[in-house]
Amino acid sequence: MTGAPLFERMALIGIGLIGSSIAQTARQRGLVKEIAISTRSPATLQRAEELELGDFYSVDAAQAVDGADLVILCVPVGANEAVAKWISPVLKAGAILTDVGSTKQSVVDQVSPHVPKGVHFIPGHPIAGTEQSGPDAGFPTLFDQRWCILTPPKGTDQAALEKLSAFWQECGSNVDLMDPKHHDLVLAIVSHLPHLIAYNIVGTADDLETVTKSQVIKYSASGFRDFTRLAASDPTMWRDVCLNNKEAILEMLSRFSEDLSAMQRAIRWGDGDMLFDLFTRTRGIRRSIIEAGQETDEPDFGRHAADTRQDD
Amino acid sequence: MTGAPLFERMALIGIGLIGSSIAQTARQRGLVKEIAISTRSPATLQRAEELELGDFYSVDAAQAVDGADLVILCVPVGANEAVAKWISPVLKAGAILTDVGSTKQSVVDQVSPHVPKGVHFIPGHPIAGTEQSGPDAGFPTLFDQRWCILTPPKGTDQAALEKLSAFWQECGSNVDLMDPKHHDLVLAIVSHLPHLIAYNIVGTADDLETVTKSQVIKYSASGFRDFTRLAASDPTMWRDVCLNNKEAILEMLSRFSEDLSAMQRAIRWGDGDMLFDLFTRTRGIRRSIIEAGQETDEPDFGRHAADTRQDD
Repeated sequence: MTGAPLFERMALIGIGLIGSSIAQTARQRGLVKEIAISTRSPATLQRAEELELGDFYSVDAAQAVDGADLVILCVPVGANEAVAKWISPVLKAGAILTDVGSTKQSVVDQVSPHVPKGVHFIPGHPIAGTEQSGPDAGFPTLFDQRWCILTPPKGTDQAALEKLSAFWQECGSNVDLMDPKHHDLVLAIVSHLPHLIAYNIVGTADDLETVTKSQVIKYSASGFRDFTRLAASDPTMWRDVCLNNKEAILEMLSRFSEDLSAMQRAIRWGDGDMLFDLFTRTRGIRRSIIEAGQETDEPDFGRHAADTRQDD
Repeated sequence: MTGAPLFERMALIGIGLIGSSIAQTARQRGLVKEIAISTRSPATLQRAEELELGDFYSVDAAQAVDGADLVILCVPVGANEAVAKWISPVLKAGAILTDVGSTKQSVVDQVSPHVPKGVHFIPGHPIAGTEQSGPDAGFPTLFDQRWCILTPPKGTDQAALEKLSAFWQECGSNVDLMDPKHHDLVLAIVSHLPHLIAYNIVGTADDLETVTKSQVIKYSASGFRDFTRLAASDPTMWRDVCLNNKEAILEMLSRFSEDLSAMQRAIRWGDGDMLFDLFTRTRGIRRSIIEAGQETDEPDFGRHAADTRQDD
């Protein structure tokens, strides 16, 4: 897509859905000359090699990072600090160090102390994904028309910021700059709360004695199944998100619960007007999301279940 | 699909997503000879006529029902009683009267007193739909591979039950028989709670001062947008569901809230193991739903946003 590659050697630490998608996008679009991949699981590393995602593979993160001018941490956010300590001695001056974690203030707190002078540390978060995980789940168009949020610390080198922004733009994304704390608040409502609510409702259904699991499964097309997608996301990733964005998540959970109590009260007391008003104003938001190009306008997500008779 | 039509004249009272889909399916598959359509809104009735959904159109439900051997109430559940009173005088002996409402005990309570002797009243609920509403939203494959629950009262005529079952089977559905109270409990967890939670979270996001609406929209692909689909459903229908399945919904809401409090506590106290365990067991349910043919196995619902570069 571009002429010369933006980077000589990109090191990906972690090769799940996001790492794998970055590798495939960067390779397909010629954004980097060489790709080094490291992950602590030998089985996952072998799978990455079978998929030919990189040029160099090692379970030793420091070996992968050695000589890299772009280092991207693609591990669950709880693992960032240990990785930063590990690679710190081999990070070369002038290199850009970034990550893809769903929380940003925690990454700043945990990684910054281990970044050597002369290395440009610019935390990042591509707002893209599916419910699947692992290197096989990656694909090269994952970042197209999505947003990537960067949270450059004060005094960040402008050239490094522009280069990293260019990388994400070539990956297909629009780049936004944000304060890490504000990022964490925004993501708490648009991503963390939805996932937690989804996990929670699926758990509640799983626990019922009065309705069997097979009934939940059979009739799930009436609404429930939508939640099971988010609730099938990677458990380690989401445990780490909870532990690393505690304050913002608790704030959003508590607002959600307050609103739910008000709804519960309206149902108990038969306040149809309150319910009708709420159910009406929520429609507009979906319309706006579709207009912003962040959602399909096909009914039911354009979903086709294992339905061979459906011909549209 | 079959030989002779199952019914001479089918009357549809209400012609939204479900009524329109029934009309199209029945016509396409030759299940009825004649289709009479009634709805109280002249504009909607006119639209149904433009779409050529039926053979006879009237804002007077009694006129549509006159001479029908199959009458299907396709109105929001709160309107069933008034419609039943209205059509009661013209329901002919031997006719089958059914409905498509999302609550069943309320329909039994509100409609039964108005059913003349000799009319077979068999409440029903096809578990199918999209977030869209109105006659334009209907399509003839909506019921394929879905379930239709019938709640025949004690002493229901066996031949009538078989005939109505055959109708739904020809529409593409599997028929289940259930007690109305149990139906209401099952639907409270698989359908009503998911919709209410979705409406609630979208409402919570809409109310925030710290995160702007445009940020919620921009970054919605990270989870939030999934909820906006259910929260775009028909407000009148869902208000009526809440008012007519109060007990079961309050029971499920209270279980959900308890579980949410436990999760909130785990987050506050950093109980990663509790979170990891919950996030792990919820994955299995999605797998089961996919295996049961009630969900697509494509990542992200196979959704393609307004994404022209995505080529898979």
